[in-house]
Amino acid sequence: MAHINLPEQLPGIRGLMAFRPQTATPLNALAEVLLRSDEGLNKGERELIATYVSALNDCFFCQNIHGAVAAHYFDEELVKKIRANNIEVEISDKMKALLAIAGAVQQGGKFVRETQIEQAKNQGASDIEIHDTVLIAAAFCMFNRYVDSLNTFAPDAPEMYRERAKKIIEETGYAGSSPR
Amino acid sequence: MAHINLPEQLPGIRGLMAFRPQTATPLNALAEVLLRSDEGLNKGERELIATYVSALNDCFFCQNIHGAVAAHYFDEELVKKIRANNIEVEISDKMKALLAIAGAVQQGGKFVRETQIEQAKNQGASDIEIHDTVLIAAAFCMFNRYVDSLNTFAPDAPEMYRERAKKIIEETGYAGSSPR
Repeated sequence: MAHINLPEQLPGIRGLMAFRPQTATPLNALAEVLLRSDEGLNKGERELIATYVSALNDCFFCQNIHGAVAAHYFDEELVKKIRANNIEVEISDKMKALLAIAGAVQQGGKFVRETQIEQAKNQGASDIEIHDTVLIAAAFCMFNRYVDSLNTFAPDAPEMYRERAKKIIEETGYAGSSPR
Repeated sequence: MAHINLPEQLPGIRGLMAFRPQTATPLNALAEVLLRSDEGLNKGERELIATYVSALNDCFFCQNIHGAVAAHYFDEELVKKIRANNIEVEISDKMKALLAIAGAVQQGGKFVRETQIEQAKNQGASDIEIHDTVLIAAAFCMFNRYVDSLNTFAPDAPEMYRERAKKIIEETGYAGSSPR
């Protein structure tokens, strides 16, 4: 049971957003700008970073919902490996280097090494791509803690996440009117 | 030197916000709603949580700027103790219980214990106060990682932080036009 009295049986962050619409608005705006852009990193790459960090943080709800969105752009097998902390998958060397940076950010603010940044730049990552990777990883260190520290409910059924992902991709995005 | 080419010699998160205004807007809106409200927790209590978590994350820039804002509402000696991870200071038992929760959130999403929530509720904390404590702590796990993972510059001089804090409190807030 959640640690606070959430108004509806909405899973994960959705119950929290219904409980506190004042904070939901900037949180959703942040998710929208970080995940629904194709400037530099495309939407799939952004969702893959979110999924990877959420898996490292062991956040069941976030890795399932963002994994389901990422699987729309990649495929389920690839996302499954990323969730198992295996980044040796069929993605570009640039993305591998950026995921390594994201993994360092997940550990804390002092873990990104100069050599990791160089590696990403050598693989063609721009400053904006490095910036967005770091901020997506940092943001999911927030979202994951928010969802789990308040002990929110998360459904088991993969179909639920697939359906929700479809709705996010095709209809609402993250800044849409309904909490995700 | 910062890992990416920031346009100006603005310290900490300010350089990042000037570099990427698209993400600055929701980040500033989030800081504003989390820190500049007196609903439930007052502004000073909110800044104290932000300072405590930033100190636990060893983020020099964030603990200095938010510590300087918190010192406006409490005093410098109290804030100094909080930054040294000493929460046995002259604050309410409710705030002590909430800081303990914030400290657990800093560790990760699975660290808040049922007994910590009970303790806060027994000291009179409302669901909204517990929610906001968790989200402020989680948000600073993001802000701290953002600032430090990109290796931004932070000035040493305490006066700089005091002046900036005064400006935030009296003029701009966090959602003002200039990056904080």
